[in-house]
Amino acid sequence: MEQTANVEQAGPIEVGVTAPLGVITLANARRRNPLSSETMRAITAALRGFADDTAVRVVIIRALGPAFSAGHDLGELVDRTLEDEQAVFDTCVEMMTAVHDLDKPVIAEVSGMAFAAGCQLVATCDLAVASSAATFSTPGVRIGLFCSTPMVAVTRAIGRKRAMKMLLTGDPIDAATAADWGLVNDVVDPDDLEGTVRDLALSIAGSSAATLAIGKRAFYRQIDETEPRAYQMMSETMATNAMTCDAQEGMSAFLAKRHPVWTDS
Amino acid sequence: MEQTANVEQAGPIEVGVTAPLGVITLANARRRNPLSSETMRAITAALRGFADDTAVRVVIIRALGPAFSAGHDLGELVDRTLEDEQAVFDTCVEMMTAVHDLDKPVIAEVSGMAFAAGCQLVATCDLAVASSAATFSTPGVRIGLFCSTPMVAVTRAIGRKRAMKMLLTGDPIDAATAADWGLVNDVVDPDDLEGTVRDLALSIAGSSAATLAIGKRAFYRQIDETEPRAYQMMSETMATNAMTCDAQEGMSAFLAKRHPVWTDS
Amino acid sequence: MEQTANVEQAGPIEVGVTAPLGVITLANARRRNPLSSETMRAITAALRGFADDTAVRVVIIRALGPAFSAGHDLGELVDRTLEDEQAVFDTCVEMMTAVHDLDKPVIAEVSGMAFAAGCQLVATCDLAVASSAATFSTPGVRIGLFCSTPMVAVTRAIGRKRAMKMLLTGDPIDAATAADWGLVNDVVDPDDLEGTVRDLALSIAGSSAATLAIGKRAFYRQIDETEPRAYQMMSETMATNAMTCDAQEGMSAFLAKRHPVWTDS
Repeated sequence: MEQTANVEQAGPIEVGVTAPLGVITLANARRRNPLSSETMRAITAALRGFADDTAVRVVIIRALGPAFSAGHDLGELVDRTLEDEQAVFDTCVEMMTAVHDLDKPVIAEVSGMAFAAGCQLVATCDLAVASSAATFSTPGVRIGLFCSTPMVAVTRAIGRKRAMKMLLTGDPIDAATAADWGLVNDVVDPDDLEGTVRDLALSIAGSSAATLAIGKRAFYRQIDETEPRAYQMMSETMATNAMTCDAQEGMSAFLAKRHPVWTDS
Repeated sequence: MEQTANVEQAGPIEVGVTAPLGVITLANARRRNPLSSETMRAITAALRGFADDTAVRVVIIRALGPAFSAGHDLGELVDRTLEDEQAVFDTCVEMMTAVHDLDKPVIAEVSGMAFAAGCQLVATCDLAVASSAATFSTPGVRIGLFCSTPMVAVTRAIGRKRAMKMLLTGDPIDAATAADWGLVNDVVDPDDLEGTVRDLALSIAGSSAATLAIGKRAFYRQIDETEPRAYQMMSETMATNAMTCDAQEGMSAFLAKRHPVWTDS
Repeated sequence: MEQTANVEQAGPIEVGVTAPLGVITLANARRRNPLSSETMRAITAALRGFADDTAVRVVIIRALGPAFSAGHDLGELVDRTLEDEQAVFDTCVEMMTAVHDLDKPVIAEVSGMAFAAGCQLVATCDLAVASSAATFSTPGVRIGLFCSTPMVAVTRAIGRKRAMKMLLTGDPIDAATAADWGLVNDVVDPDDLEGTVRDLALSIAGSSAATLAIGKRAFYRQIDETEPRAYQMMSETMATNAMTCDAQEGMSAFLAKRHPVWTDS
């Protein structure tokens, strides 16, 4: 995104803000953007930083080079203690959790291969748009390390049989298949990827930030509940939401056929 | 449905029975069939009335005019107390719950736009058939009121990424997309909608009412359980079902290659 | 599979091993391979036998004749006590559970009709490949006995609206629809079915058996958990997996660009 101002190099990622968008760029293209512990901690920190930055309303995670991310840095997993191994996967889960915990939408811009934890990151983001050149796989089984943490996000995105085939074979799927299965929202020509993601992000950023925050928090709060319990929670959420300034403004503007003005815009 | 006898105007809806079908018709076409509190209470009452009406074996929810339903009546949500707001959403949840609680199949006949709580109602019905002219959206985010209660039904129907995109953008999807994502079962030409729904309803109504009741109750009892617990429950349900007159008659008729005669038909 | 050695006739099924594949063949083609209690107990025993047979790394369930399985043997369900009925469905649940409990992948090779418990068995297998001639249905509703136990597996494979339509109408779906809905992974020409399944099984069998066991167990352990709890479990699973000989060998081989040698291969 050429217009991105204030880009900071934060170890193996770049973090930038061009209001209203926050952009995290995986910047180790030569090594196909491995999710090393350092990288994952930097992404988590960037997401948490965006939480407090009112200039940021929507976040994009993208990558330099032909790959989105090849997954974990295997060098960190060979000849280690159990504590070392555990630390890597805990760091990974912390990053995935930070994506959901951030009360601003996070969009994956998937330019190329998204493998293992890279595929998991795509599955975890609220939305994902892929280049037609992107491919997705959970290939851990082939190197003796089953993609058990990626499985959590992938099974919840694409369902049992399809997840099981990806996990047991390690075979990649193409972008069209990923869209057909619900792993990504849309597939576009590589040349259109950045623009499509930007337009989508800006479209969402036009809504009330307070409402987006209520909605995203609510989404993940209700998703694992039984339906009766989810309804009980969401009925309260929606009543409280309706009392906010932005909802009152939004509904009044709609009824008066004028454009709403949000509290923080 | 021209043949519907005994149609009663129940406030903003019409309720009719042409055995074996019960039909609820949203009848405020001019205002695009808003789900006002009065309308939602009337639908809930109609569904509960059908529970006790042995002439009704399958229920259809349809609408007059080009829209199915535009969702809540926003006039009820502006300048209200928290108690007022809460009452509206509780009334909505009560209606959705009544669709599942009725132990007769409920089919949505979706002629046109199904937005917000209208989209939720489609997601909640046991089955849905849409006109190719129908559109679906959860546009609350655009007016500051995130579609948090519709989200409960919509995420459970179409999965995470697709639901999140509908919720965060408010953009409508067309009928073909709704079928592709599992929000509706089938899409037909507008001229064929009423006939298709009627044929589907009559086909289902030819089965034993007792068996349909056992099955529908079982469906929603098991859906939120872990798989081992669901199997434990369903194994008991199926054994008890097998002991009923209609199951014994149905199996005997099948083995003898004759048509079954149900207890209540 | 002509090459299958040591085929044993175990009542109504044939059980064979041609390393690295275990093959269970439903062998009552004349009666369309009913899942009688005897058959279900034999399948359960065969699956448990494969658990202890290190020569078996992947299991295939297939059938003789044009049908895969027409479902339960109705003769066992007519004029019985509740205890008899319960025993049949408990035997069925035990078989389905044995598919998941076996820590080796199980692939359904679906040559033809897979109805009721036959459809459930396809939904339950880890993977499924269907002939283009195959059809799938849960037709119990038509004979008074709602497919409540098949429902558990089918709803979890294909989602609510589609499962509800299959269950309420009993109408069959074709193989292409089954693949589109995620009930089976792939559809192939009838002449290619056996070869496709064999190639898929052998491809999976090339991975570390220890890793496949860790992964399959993990899959079913996490599937019904909330996402945070699933991540907690899987992070531990993956760290422990990473410490195994096969993972260390697999990662080292990958980094050295050589083929891995698994402990048990």
